[in-house]
Amino acid sequence: MERIVARYYIETPYAVEKAATALAGEQSSGTFVMVPGETEELKNRFAARVEHIEPLETVSEPAIPGATSPDGVYRRATVDVSWSVENFGHNLPTLISTLQGNLYEITQFTGLKLMDIHFPESYVNNYRGPRFGINGSRSLTHVAPGRPLLGTIIKPSVGLTPAQTAEIVDTLAQAGIDFVKDDELMASTANSPFEDRVDAVMRVINRHADRTGKKVMYAFNISDELEPMLRKYDYVLQSGGTCAMISLNSIGLAGAKRICDLSELAIHGHRNGWGMLNRHPLLGIEFPAYQKLWRLAGVDQLHVNGIQNKFWESDDSVVRSIASCLDAAPLDKPVLPVVSSGQWGGQAFETYRRTQTTDLLYMAGGGIMAHPGGPAAGVTALQQAWEGAVGGLTMEEAARQYPEFGGSVEKFGKLQIHRA
Amino acid sequence: MERIVARYYIETPYAVEKAATALAGEQSSGTFVMVPGETEELKNRFAARVEHIEPLETVSEPAIPGATSPDGVYRRATVDVSWSVENFGHNLPTLISTLQGNLYEITQFTGLKLMDIHFPESYVNNYRGPRFGINGSRSLTHVAPGRPLLGTIIKPSVGLTPAQTAEIVDTLAQAGIDFVKDDELMASTANSPFEDRVDAVMRVINRHADRTGKKVMYAFNISDELEPMLRKYDYVLQSGGTCAMISLNSIGLAGAKRICDLSELAIHGHRNGWGMLNRHPLLGIEFPAYQKLWRLAGVDQLHVNGIQNKFWESDDSVVRSIASCLDAAPLDKPVLPVVSSGQWGGQAFETYRRTQTTDLLYMAGGGIMAHPGGPAAGVTALQQAWEGAVGGLTMEEAARQYPEFGGSVEKFGKLQIHRA
Repeated sequence: MERIVARYYIETPYAVEKAATALAGEQSSGTFVMVPGETEELKNRFAARVEHIEPLETVSEPAIPGATSPDGVYRRATVDVSWSVENFGHNLPTLISTLQGNLYEITQFTGLKLMDIHFPESYVNNYRGPRFGINGSRSLTHVAPGRPLLGTIIKPSVGLTPAQTAEIVDTLAQAGIDFVKDDELMASTANSPFEDRVDAVMRVINRHADRTGKKVMYAFNISDELEPMLRKYDYVLQSGGTCAMISLNSIGLAGAKRICDLSELAIHGHRNGWGMLNRHPLLGIEFPAYQKLWRLAGVDQLHVNGIQNKFWESDDSVVRSIASCLDAAPLDKPVLPVVSSGQWGGQAFETYRRTQTTDLLYMAGGGIMAHPGGPAAGVTALQQAWEGAVGGLTMEEAARQYPEFGGSVEKFGKLQIHRA
Repeated sequence: MERIVARYYIETPYAVEKAATALAGEQSSGTFVMVPGETEELKNRFAARVEHIEPLETVSEPAIPGATSPDGVYRRATVDVSWSVENFGHNLPTLISTLQGNLYEITQFTGLKLMDIHFPESYVNNYRGPRFGINGSRSLTHVAPGRPLLGTIIKPSVGLTPAQTAEIVDTLAQAGIDFVKDDELMASTANSPFEDRVDAVMRVINRHADRTGKKVMYAFNISDELEPMLRKYDYVLQSGGTCAMISLNSIGLAGAKRICDLSELAIHGHRNGWGMLNRHPLLGIEFPAYQKLWRLAGVDQLHVNGIQNKFWESDDSVVRSIASCLDAAPLDKPVLPVVSSGQWGGQAFETYRRTQTTDLLYMAGGGIMAHPGGPAAGVTALQQAWEGAVGGLTMEEAARQYPEFGGSVEKFGKLQIHRA
């Protein structure tokens, strides 16, 4: 029988084997005493199984509150646990309740993070995954392989009218941008009702498309309760839009999959709220596991932060996230990594050096909108940065060669956060 | 214009005022430089506003990774921030993206927890909240005020056939139980397909109801992707069931609200995954804020853990959670607190002493199923425990007065976790 394997990074005040057994027990038998009806046969068929334990370092202070160690030592380890697919079938929410659920509550752990999930073959057959993904997003925007899709976020996040938003989109489309998105804070506001914004923006985008043959992909933020979200999806579709954005953690998996299943628009998955699930090194979930769940649900584009970002995440972590999005498993269908946060083109060089890929949606917000030559020059600068990076130039060489990118370096180069 | 106020517990390596301003800026303007179109008028209307700062302790080590303090001091504080309702209207997912979202990523914080949310009047008018809640759950189970609803969870969590499950329900119904639930790990398994389980269990429950006039409330775990979840909901309803359980965090808010909006079954909200959102003292969300979001979505019954539980949570925290569920705000409609985890009746005394309420769904899993006299004696023991607790007896007095409860004390009393 097929099994799903989950890898955890744990810390425990007890023997690692004992803690691993508690983990497996809680997530299959699930009570503190032996109960009638719990036969050996049942246990063998449905019990979670500890597959492998890799002991790691020990520490003298617990990472998060839990039981006190009798010998003052907190032991860390990697633990692989497996479950029969018979336990839940193909039901992603119940899979999550099984692989995560109450595990974070168990007192025998002073740290627990879900690192990765290995899905068996039947998941590949049961879940279609991204309808558009990398290739579909390229087709919709007419961006051939060899460079990333280049995009921006309308800023300020909240406050512009539909007409103001459309005016910015006009400038950006003129400058040859591939992708524009609403901010995750912008859904339907007092001075930018959703439908009015779609009308105004799509009028501009459709006009440019008629002229040039290239339709800018605009990710309208449809995040909402389910019924209004479905209405907004339809509105975008009927208006000729090609993409909708959803805040994955705020909506949740059942709602997100419902939207992805519609399969008409590319789904831009925003991961805001991610820090809550990931920022502590020994609590929550790591991105390789996280992206698989959303990929199974059918998300086409997924945020991964960016090199030298304005947030707390390290470059190493961003590089790992990009690699996991591009990895074929579990569906032979990668999800398009969305690089953003404090990007302005200067990071293109390091991004390309470390990832060696252009299968990215590379987004600059302020980096485009606040370019000294205006947003159009900001788009050009971003294109130049990637041309330079892929062509083997250094940032300094590209700045000398391309005037608009040179302007970016002059304005944003000094704002760049330097990391150890 | 109405404003929503959120309270955060933060830690920062910088001046608290500076960090609070960064918080408000990220969640309204949202970029790292001033951009065209961002006028003072726009800012005043849509910007988040720091309402109040309460400085607290300082520490010498950051709670979670972030920026390094220039003076080696990490400052903690309570910060109240407000947003105009104009920014998002009545859209719970976008509210969550605004109040939480990228906040957890900001490098200026080495700790951030959403403590509470104050909703303005229009939310009360826009969200119905729990359709059943405390009073509705009492009516459906014929439990008059004065004692909690008493319930149990079918254990082992996974593995029993529908016939075995129904047999246990039969025994429990005979013994006068009010409520039974599937485990959150149990959805539809190879040897207990959902519909077969509903058929078998409801046959027993309906038979007892015809005989006694009291229908046991069984929370069938319908947690699934949206379409199968809706089908399962209908199946429970058509079979005469009165309740469905959903794993809130695994499904997410959009899906959960869609289910609650159906308004025909009481919705039992399981919070598995909660530890990931809450276990660290300076990361995530506290229960008073969390329960308000789910209450607005319409959840009727919500897990709060229990006194002397088997998990890591302190009694103080459990008591606070129960109080917040019973608090009228924001909807004048409390949600029924579900007390569980390692409960067997012995904790009834401390639970009642500290909460002074019987508006609880009090659940024992192993505590009923593994009673030395069998599950029926387990139910009786639980009833006796609460009768004793409300009547002012101590646990020891009740154990002497009631033989079944005495049996519980003998078996489970020594397993009880003693806490400081």
